[in-house]
Amino acid sequence: MQAALYALSPTDQLEPISVVSATPFYSSYPEVTDFVKSGLHKWAGDARTFEKNGPFIEFITSPNNPDGVVREPVVNGNQGKLIYDLAYYWPQYTAITSPANHDVMLFTISKCTGHAGSRIGWALVKDKEVAKKMTKFIEISTIGVSKEAQLRAAKILEVVSDSCLDPKMENFFEYSQSLMSDRWKRLRQVVMANDFFVLQKYPFQYCLFTKDFCESHPAFAWLICKGGEEEDCQKLLKEHKINTRSGRRFGSDLRNVRISMLSRDEDFNIFLKRLTTIRGPTNEN
Amino acid sequence: MQAALYALSPTDQLEPISVVSATPFYSSYPEVTDFVKSGLHKWAGDARTFEKNGPFIEFITSPNNPDGVVREPVVNGNQGKLIYDLAYYWPQYTAITSPANHDVMLFTISKCTGHAGSRIGWALVKDKEVAKKMTKFIEISTIGVSKEAQLRAAKILEVVSDSCLDPKMENFFEYSQSLMSDRWKRLRQVVMANDFFVLQKYPFQYCLFTKDFCESHPAFAWLICKGGEEEDCQKLLKEHKINTRSGRRFGSDLRNVRISMLSRDEDFNIFLKRLTTIRGPTNEN
Repeated sequence: MQAALYALSPTDQLEPISVVSATPFYSSYPEVTDFVKSGLHKWAGDARTFEKNGPFIEFITSPNNPDGVVREPVVNGNQGKLIYDLAYYWPQYTAITSPANHDVMLFTISKCTGHAGSRIGWALVKDKEVAKKMTKFIEISTIGVSKEAQLRAAKILEVVSDSCLDPKMENFFEYSQSLMSDRWKRLRQVVMANDFFVLQKYPFQYCLFTKDFCESHPAFAWLICKGGEEEDCQKLLKEHKINTRSGRRFGSDLRNVRISMLSRDEDFNIFLKRLTTIRGPTNEN
Repeated sequence: MQAALYALSPTDQLEPISVVSATPFYSSYPEVTDFVKSGLHKWAGDARTFEKNGPFIEFITSPNNPDGVVREPVVNGNQGKLIYDLAYYWPQYTAITSPANHDVMLFTISKCTGHAGSRIGWALVKDKEVAKKMTKFIEISTIGVSKEAQLRAAKILEVVSDSCLDPKMENFFEYSQSLMSDRWKRLRQVVMANDFFVLQKYPFQYCLFTKDFCESHPAFAWLICKGGEEEDCQKLLKEHKINTRSGRRFGSDLRNVRISMLSRDEDFNIFLKRLTTIRGPTNEN
């Protein structure tokens, strides 16, 4: 992410380039863009309200973190450089509707198989010069990426790939999709029953990978309180011992929260149980 | 390194804090300090000629990279914040003359055991708030450090530590010291014989770890051409197929080069062989 920002930021400008993403955006973007007060780039907030002329960088997270929506760029401007964060573009989360074919695409193993602790990501970049600058960034900032983690990630991805090609093995993505599908089904049942929350809606789409129509099963649930704008959904859930991240952190409002769908089975079951008991702050006993 | 810079840089100043180190300094310091044009810190060059009033950060690499000299801070100023880079403070390279007891100390496994590819370092920091800010930096920049590499590094350090405590095992540092000692002896013989180069001199000191007097055996040889200031030592060695890094990269001059003493045996032998043939540019055939 930082390497891409570094590579796409012009070095001959007096002012840092504006970096935007449409709300709700990944909560780390503002911090990662601004934490060392870089003279190369500066967070400029919601891509939808961005109206400055000149060059800019837009982050497009698709499917989006936090709300799982499949996204396209929103800024109308021909001087935009686009960074596609495809961390969640895997068949267990979303329909693979077309081969990813953008100029700068970021991937990570953390959301593919859950090996977040390996800290291994990769980028596919069309422009050789941009790729070189990204490599340069990694060289300066860390000299390189842990070899142990690289080796383990390569082996893990090999096994995943084999599972998709060898009919005697259980296909990793089909297995993961069935787990996600089951969790989402159970979550939807609880949300339907309590009548106080709404979940983000997703289209039914044809997936080129599974060769079947499928629903989205995002890694996070984007839950919306039916209360007014004043409703602090994170606070409400916190009172019921459910830890979430407030929509405010994603440039959105207090009514929304992001809930991880990737916890352990036991934790997920406790979460559903607690969510079932909520009847909303207004009609609580 | 970046985490320490981040943590020690004031956030309430209009201007970035000056970062200095005495020449010859580690060649990455200027780049690491300035590569994203941070508004927090700015490279200000040689610590010896630094005369600006106000706060500053001084890097003290001890033993120093590139020249192996044991160092102390050089800037006279009470507003200095010191970062001790102790990457080479291990018994195979230098006498351990006192327990390291500075405010901010950086370590790495790469120079201790040679596992540079693991990219594992650690810091010992006295001030809790500084330590917290360093942790925050790591959180924002990478979310964390590869778990695979952490586990492997911990195991390696355990074996090293065991080797020092268990009399049935070969002490890792004594073994490494004997290897370094042998290489330095052979290099000094070649340098003495060819009469065109000089090596940095080191004091003979008592080492609290080996409980014996010993010479320094730095990870790099800092070679000085006897020619005039115009002599380009890197170029000369390059003509003899010896790759070095020019003194200029370390804020020093063309007469100096840094040569790795940590190459594989075979490569080190070829290096000595090639060095033997050099008679200097003026009296070459």
